Amino acid sequence: MSLIKINRERLWASLMEMAAIGATDKGGCNRQALTEEDKLGRELFIRWCEEAGCTIRVDQMGNIFARREGTEANAAAVITGSHLDTQPTGGKFDGVYGVLAGLEVIRSLNDHEVATHHPIEVVVWTNEEGARFSPAMIGSGVWCGEFSLDYGWSRADKAGKTIKQELENTGFLGEVPCEPANIKAAFELHIEQGPILEKTETTIGVVEGVQGMRWYDLTLIGQPVHAGPTPMEDRKDPFMALTEITAQLYQLAEQNAPRARVTFGDIRAEPGSRNTVPEKLVLAVDLRHPQQARLEEMDTAFRAIAASVGEKFGIATEIRDEWNSPAVQFSEQCIEAVQSAVDGLEYSNMRMFSGAGHDSVYVSRRVPTSMIFVPCEKGISHNEAENADQGDIGAGADVLLNAMIKAASA
Amino acid sequence: MSLIKINRERLWASLMEMAAIGATDKGGCNRQALTEEDKLGRELFIRWCEEAGCTIRVDQMGNIFARREGTEANAAAVITGSHLDTQPTGGKFDGVYGVLAGLEVIRSLNDHEVATHHPIEVVVWTNEEGARFSPAMIGSGVWCGEFSLDYGWSRADKAGKTIKQELENTGFLGEVPCEPANIKAAFELHIEQGPILEKTETTIGVVEGVQGMRWYDLTLIGQPVHAGPTPMEDRKDPFMALTEITAQLYQLAEQNAPRARVTFGDIRAEPGSRNTVPEKLVLAVDLRHPQQARLEEMDTAFRAIAASVGEKFGIATEIRDEWNSPAVQFSEQCIEAVQSAVDGLEYSNMRMFSGAGHDSVYVSRRVPTSMIFVPCEKGISHNEAENADQGDIGAGADVLLNAMIKAASA
Repeated sequence: MSLIKINRERLWASLMEMAAIGATDKGGCNRQALTEEDKLGRELFIRWCEEAGCTIRVDQMGNIFARREGTEANAAAVITGSHLDTQPTGGKFDGVYGVLAGLEVIRSLNDHEVATHHPIEVVVWTNEEGARFSPAMIGSGVWCGEFSLDYGWSRADKAGKTIKQELENTGFLGEVPCEPANIKAAFELHIEQGPILEKTETTIGVVEGVQGMRWYDLTLIGQPVHAGPTPMEDRKDPFMALTEITAQLYQLAEQNAPRARVTFGDIRAEPGSRNTVPEKLVLAVDLRHPQQARLEEMDTAFRAIAASVGEKFGIATEIRDEWNSPAVQFSEQCIEAVQSAVDGLEYSNMRMFSGAGHDSVYVSRRVPTSMIFVPCEKGISHNEAENADQGDIGAGADVLLNAMIKAASA
Repeated sequence: MSLIKINRERLWASLMEMAAIGATDKGGCNRQALTEEDKLGRELFIRWCEEAGCTIRVDQMGNIFARREGTEANAAAVITGSHLDTQPTGGKFDGVYGVLAGLEVIRSLNDHEVATHHPIEVVVWTNEEGARFSPAMIGSGVWCGEFSLDYGWSRADKAGKTIKQELENTGFLGEVPCEPANIKAAFELHIEQGPILEKTETTIGVVEGVQGMRWYDLTLIGQPVHAGPTPMEDRKDPFMALTEITAQLYQLAEQNAPRARVTFGDIRAEPGSRNTVPEKLVLAVDLRHPQQARLEEMDTAFRAIAASVGEKFGIATEIRDEWNSPAVQFSEQCIEAVQSAVDGLEYSNMRMFSGAGHDSVYVSRRVPTSMIFVPCEKGISHNEAENADQGDIGAGADVLLNAMIKAASA
């Protein structure tokens, strides 16, 4: 199979044109889900797809499917896509790149007059970011069956407007059932949103799966006593327990290196008085590992550490489970399609796991799926400063194009 | 010298009668400085002192001096006292005990017809708690020259009322200059407000001084990155530095045991997002030691620890000095007068340091001073549940009586 390439200038120009909708002063984008800006972005995408000869379907959650027919009319579709919505101070690439690279795949197939056996579809998933409507990834979540349609429709923003109302207002309340139908494989191209590819000077990340994540609130309860009179050995000081628990959890990350992640994103003290030993500390704990079994071992170790350190210092410990997102292992077949494309294109590449959630997490529950990453500057994302190299952006789309051609072959 | 004792029932009854003014539902007191309740408490104290034959002076800061003459008219006075104001949810003993034990000293001298060479005075210091007007210990602070009279008068409560206005409103804006004049020695009797005496089953604490205290805000600045993609070794995670800094500071406390205190009363994370490594942690650090030289060594060690751990983890560290209260060493002569009294009375006793601030910190700058502590239940103070044993309360006043008799001898 001879490999073809996409048109880099055209892809970049499309990205910049889309970025003008909701552009912020600092060079980012504010195009939150189902706002007027999102409506304009969606309409632009549909116009481009129609110009490329696609037919458009919109489902009950506003997910948009742009279809290029294959040579076999009833063959299962090979799909790709991501999201057009952004964080309030988001960037130009997160999500948008995956959508517009999908469009560029279709444009390039047209340019090269390539006919595929299976149809190709480009999807725009609704409300991936979760910035306007919680939870995140609601469009793909309803589609895969994680959430009911009523649940998805009823999610409201801070002003009380529901997704269903805003789908109606923007004209994107479709009639197509929000569920998978006749799909062979799915791919999603995305900026890495981490520093690994840039640091290792690698162009393409062949993504094998998504880290499992567990979120907890760990509460440590001691005795609030005056900082002056009370001898150190008479204290029930939750900070003493915290110090040892965080030290042991960082050791746990080392024991599960290089793929484990241990993060303490937030902490608060009560009563929070400078000259009083805190009665209570509440620590946000985030544990991640791409292998589910290892993550479960980390979970068990975390609970044991909290209990034993708490006992040592006379501190009551409570662990509240806040979120549990199991590790995802992508389809071997899809990973191989990506690897084959990247090898053929001779781009530097590495196998890796996604540390962030993506629509592909839900999509992969119903359809063989994998992802492709390209580097982003300093790993920065969810930020107006988000940036990526034009060459890398093109290379990622080349890989997507050829992986989809392979998957869409007879 | 034969030792005499105070009247325990009378002292206890006075404490309970005073506690009825501003009594709270939970058995505590709310008699904040220069309120109507404080006015009533002060007037009751003055009536009792006048009934005991004292003359009363009120100075420009509302500090009250009740005087029992000595045999030598112009001899320097031996004074004792504390405060009648309480926290909003304070107890029956903090401060009040020191004042009414002073009154009981005078009553007992009268009972036993003891004439002292030096006059005896009992002082009520204005606004010790700092609960209504900040800072704390303002009456003794102006008296000793720490604050100017204008500064003291101009302090305002949350409603904007100044100390001078409230002195006028309560009738306690005196004309006597607020400054020391002709004083030989000062004593202050107080509940410990800590657990040491109760824990060691000791009746009397012979207080040698007050811990030096240093308050800091330690800011640790890292790099806010996503909890998922960023490998542990690529992070600039302020929590990693925090964990090692707090561990080393607890070791510093052990190296300076048993008298060092290390307390982290408050902490906050920015941005405080569960799945982001914090950009910034701000930790409240409270270091104490009764020996100034040791405290300064701890200060030096703290700065070195913060700098070296910060460098190790690539974390910028900033230390802001919030307060610096040097250690106070009380007068050897006064400590000996107390020790002699407690030995003569054969009460169990130990030398100790105060962990909390008291009017004696300021008084000791101008006059030879020491303090006497008695146990309080579970070390609890600044709390409506504050309690003390009637026997201990009596024993402390016995010690005060005989220490003052000794100091007031020719």
